[in-house]
Amino acid sequence: MNLDYLLKFFVPKDTAFFPLFEHDVKVLVKAAELFKTLMDTQSIEQREPIIKQIKAMELEGDEITHEIFGQLNKSFITPFDREDIHELASSLDDVLDHMNGASQRIRLYKPKVLLPVLKEFSELIYQAAKEIEFSVNGLRNAGKNREKIIQSCIVLNTIENKGDDLYQMGISKLFDEEKDTIELIKTKEIIATLEKAVDKAEDVSDVIKTILIKMA
Amino acid sequence: MNLDYLLKFFVPKDTAFFPLFEHDVKVLVKAAELFKTLMDTQSIEQREPIIKQIKAMELEGDEITHEIFGQLNKSFITPFDREDIHELASSLDDVLDHMNGASQRIRLYKPKVLLPVLKEFSELIYQAAKEIEFSVNGLRNAGKNREKIIQSCIVLNTIENKGDDLYQMGISKLFDEEKDTIELIKTKEIIATLEKAVDKAEDVSDVIKTILIKMA
Amino acid sequence: MNLDYLLKFFVPKDTAFFPLFEHDVKVLVKAAELFKTLMDTQSIEQREPIIKQIKAMELEGDEITHEIFGQLNKSFITPFDREDIHELASSLDDVLDHMNGASQRIRLYKPKVLLPVLKEFSELIYQAAKEIEFSVNGLRNAGKNREKIIQSCIVLNTIENKGDDLYQMGISKLFDEEKDTIELIKTKEIIATLEKAVDKAEDVSDVIKTILIKMA
Repeated sequence: MNLDYLLKFFVPKDTAFFPLFEHDVKVLVKAAELFKTLMDTQSIEQREPIIKQIKAMELEGDEITHEIFGQLNKSFITPFDREDIHELASSLDDVLDHMNGASQRIRLYKPKVLLPVLKEFSELIYQAAKEIEFSVNGLRNAGKNREKIIQSCIVLNTIENKGDDLYQMGISKLFDEEKDTIELIKTKEIIATLEKAVDKAEDVSDVIKTILIKMA
Repeated sequence: MNLDYLLKFFVPKDTAFFPLFEHDVKVLVKAAELFKTLMDTQSIEQREPIIKQIKAMELEGDEITHEIFGQLNKSFITPFDREDIHELASSLDDVLDHMNGASQRIRLYKPKVLLPVLKEFSELIYQAAKEIEFSVNGLRNAGKNREKIIQSCIVLNTIENKGDDLYQMGISKLFDEEKDTIELIKTKEIIATLEKAVDKAEDVSDVIKTILIKMA
Repeated sequence: MNLDYLLKFFVPKDTAFFPLFEHDVKVLVKAAELFKTLMDTQSIEQREPIIKQIKAMELEGDEITHEIFGQLNKSFITPFDREDIHELASSLDDVLDHMNGASQRIRLYKPKVLLPVLKEFSELIYQAAKEIEFSVNGLRNAGKNREKIIQSCIVLNTIENKGDDLYQMGISKLFDEEKDTIELIKTKEIIATLEKAVDKAEDVSDVIKTILIKMA
């Protein structure tokens, strides 16, 4: 409705953002895959190289975020609002950060066992990463993909609710079964970090919804 | 100052959002009332039905949030910025989520006693819910109610400060008095969830302030 | 690109915000200095007056935040988007809040020792406060200072990463060395509050980046 809006019909939009975001979600899915693999390890020795790879993904993600920001500073007309591009990049970064945060905590706190709830969380996060990948890739053709992206955002909302339930059930089980308080505190924090990763995945869907709403 | 702004004088605004938000804050206040009642229960048996009702409120809130989002996708001219409508709905949802989160934790962790600090928090949250109800209902006639809404936002800010103090005092008392570490951890997390609910109530006031600021 | 943008060339901008923000970051740096001093105290008696001064800084910050909001309601043309001014004020407030939160926890929980990791955090937060001061002061002449402000935002991002590492290392050391579980929980929460203060400092840099992006 404003001049910006009219201009967008006539001036070619900068499409350089799409490959950057597509790369970013690829890194995210890769990290989520690695995290799932981490849950199947049986020893600290097996864990070390996987945790390093997750860290490498986080650094790769950081670089993409900086590139997106640099691109924003050069672009005249962007495919969607500048602040939303920025928000999308930051929120993707947050998901990766928390995944890496959980794996670093596993490395440093050395919990005696990786409880089944952690494996369940890794699967939930992987699902979230795949939905994020789908929605973000869909943005290149947001008009056509609108309904599918909205569906995907609803799924991300459902995943977040599942994350809350999984957290509460997991911690409650921990209170019942873990008699070593220090081990309890360690695992509780790892679970909390994973729950936050799922929360952050929902924040991504909120940004995507904002982008779609502005296009409506 | 932009075309949007001028158009808003001539094109009828979509008023469908107001009843949705008014419904949403009603659900929020109801949940806060239920949570206060929960604090007066003496046994797990008494708690169960109230916790279920709080959960039902959360689900009702979720549906309203989805309706608001659906409405956003259909509306041409909105009474305030689309992203602020979206933010307002999400932030209301967050308050409800944390209230439900606290009551679910009470259900699952089964703390031996519900400490007085929890009751104090339930009263603070109820006050916050009433202020939110007042401000959100005031938005239908934001020009006339401006000063009163701003006052209400200041009260929400004060409530958040009180929440911080209550949290710190409550936890500090817990450290002094609770000798069972597991019970301490359980109650600490329930208190933390309530403190977050109060935080999220202040986030609602931030969105409302943003809406007013844009109208200035 | 919209009318707002054009108007900004011809209508004098309200510069009243700059002194307010400059005052705000001064208070922030002062609080960070006090927090560093707090880490060098040897007894509870020495701590008390410093903690009171930090609290006084927080109250001073709150007042500036309210003044900024009041100014927003009076100003016709603002030097950058109204919502970004609001966000910047809130995010500065959040950093101060968490610094005060950490010092209040030290007062109330009375941990037996202030571990070296707390001192390290206080130095990181001081660095963050200085970078924030530099960037915010730079906004008065954002065009000229653009590159330097961006550099400063990148430093704030690095500081946040360091905060994550410091947190994880600190907690991991705590698990290894602190045998008193209650003391462990107390110090863990103080460290977590400091880590959040650093997180919030990065949020400030995100708002500043948004402001720069919109000017691009």
